Amino acid sequence: MTRTVPFLARMQDDERAAWMEALPAALAAAGLADVAVHPLDRLDTDARQAARVAIVANPEPADLLELPNLVWVQSLWAGVERLLSELPPSALQIVRMTDPQMAETMAEAVLAWTLYLHRDMPRYRAQQRARVWHELPLRLPSQRRIGLLGLGTLGRAAARRLIANGFAVAGWSRTPADVAGVDCHHGPSGLVAVLERADIAVALLPLTAETRGLLDKTRMALLPRGAAVINFARGPILDTDALRDLLDSGHLSHAVLDVFEHEPLPADDPLWAHPQITVLPHISAPTTPQTAAKIAADNLAAFFATGAIPQAVDRARGY
Amino acid sequence: MTRTVPFLARMQDDERAAWMEALPAALAAAGLADVAVHPLDRLDTDARQAARVAIVANPEPADLLELPNLVWVQSLWAGVERLLSELPPSALQIVRMTDPQMAETMAEAVLAWTLYLHRDMPRYRAQQRARVWHELPLRLPSQRRIGLLGLGTLGRAAARRLIANGFAVAGWSRTPADVAGVDCHHGPSGLVAVLERADIAVALLPLTAETRGLLDKTRMALLPRGAAVINFARGPILDTDALRDLLDSGHLSHAVLDVFEHEPLPADDPLWAHPQITVLPHISAPTTPQTAAKIAADNLAAFFATGAIPQAVDRARGY
Repeated sequence: MTRTVPFLARMQDDERAAWMEALPAALAAAGLADVAVHPLDRLDTDARQAARVAIVANPEPADLLELPNLVWVQSLWAGVERLLSELPPSALQIVRMTDPQMAETMAEAVLAWTLYLHRDMPRYRAQQRARVWHELPLRLPSQRRIGLLGLGTLGRAAARRLIANGFAVAGWSRTPADVAGVDCHHGPSGLVAVLERADIAVALLPLTAETRGLLDKTRMALLPRGAAVINFARGPILDTDALRDLLDSGHLSHAVLDVFEHEPLPADDPLWAHPQITVLPHISAPTTPQTAAKIAADNLAAFFATGAIPQAVDRARGY
Repeated sequence: MTRTVPFLARMQDDERAAWMEALPAALAAAGLADVAVHPLDRLDTDARQAARVAIVANPEPADLLELPNLVWVQSLWAGVERLLSELPPSALQIVRMTDPQMAETMAEAVLAWTLYLHRDMPRYRAQQRARVWHELPLRLPSQRRIGLLGLGTLGRAAARRLIANGFAVAGWSRTPADVAGVDCHHGPSGLVAVLERADIAVALLPLTAETRGLLDKTRMALLPRGAAVINFARGPILDTDALRDLLDSGHLSHAVLDVFEHEPLPADDPLWAHPQITVLPHISAPTTPQTAAKIAADNLAAFFATGAIPQAVDRARGY
């Protein structure tokens, strides 16, 4: 008997094609050669009734209601806040993708755009456009203080990478944390301490009721004059109007934004054209299909064999 | 008695000010509090006759002829090819700056602009200008092959840094070399082997008769379609007309140029405006005054105490 797992994903065609290659291969490797992965619109009523697990990637939350007997979903993404906020209360368990490769890809992105700011690439780009040959003063990385907001799996991987490349790293988390080589702070007063000393603040926090609007005008104004901001977390964590004011007044020098309140960022949004804002299309840490498909397939194999469900998101805490 | 060391430097005012602070401090720390550092135009005839050593940074070679009893010069720069090519044959010894900090700064620059290309920053910048939201496929660093041309102090430091951040690194040198983790090649056939497989080729070679014009059209055409080039060595190593042809034909995707045949790059040079060329004003690895001044001061202290001259450049070999 062929088993069917619904696949609910909103993504670009080329990305979908990569998953449609990686998932069947990983399922077969996990001993599930008989399991087929099908989009919702290819499932008949019987298959929708039978589905106890689904693979999802940024799905339309309402679509999950088409699967009445769903016990859990395996997200291919780390961020699942739309599912948490828009799904009606139920026993449905939501499992985030926690792929070690994703943490490494995020750490690489944090390092890449930290170096982009550290080595003054935006200003050299502006100089090139103006045909200006001028050397800007160079700081050693040990003189550049990076403030990591969030010390979960992603934040810790980023900290390790930044430290290995010589940067001075401070970190902030909701509850006390201890990360080797990182000047760790927590709670409201800890956030002030980290922001006041950060030349580059990097947001790597989950979006929760507590982190929504965290980087507002008051908190970003705590950053030293000339500081920069990187948001690789979620759009609503940062107030973009306040950011533009602080850039325009000269208090902040630059921002790298990979995430936005509305994605794709609407074409008429003024963020696109701001000379001190680098806009990225949510690319800091895409899932790598090869490695993530293996994790999803192994989770499904365990569930089909024993009924075990991987650790799910705590819906009260929000991550 | 106050001793005077001539200082022959062509640099920006802010850079000169940094040296005029760092050098006296380093000389005092090396026990040479009585040694004064003065620009050539502040030296009278007696002081010019007395000078046996000078500190130089990119000097006008002819100016050194104003110091008839010069035995050696301490360059604050690693590159001294203009002195080598334009000074008349003499016994004058030229000592390059070999500051471990400079190698680390160069390694950081190689990593920074490798990540700039690896994470598609030029294309995301073009997309931002066009207000296009589109995710580009991401490769793992282990799938990105970096070809380092030059395995001296700078090349080895760059290799270590790239490997630590997950890249696949091949290297080429004139004579056989063995660098941990690097797929090493040498000689003419080795150059072909490295170029044929490099997604990003990075030039870190000294400018010599052998390396002038090394990256010509034929050799750059050996790079795989879509490859990129970084020149952090010296301008004449790379044929910029050939580079533009290969970019315009689509064979190469991007180039990062930090060095040019004529510096500053003339304002009417077409390289400034090429959309696939990142122009930098020779900033990949500036000397760090604090650390380099100490090395220069220690070399001077040894010379004044014992007459010892640090290892000088081999004028026949060219580095």
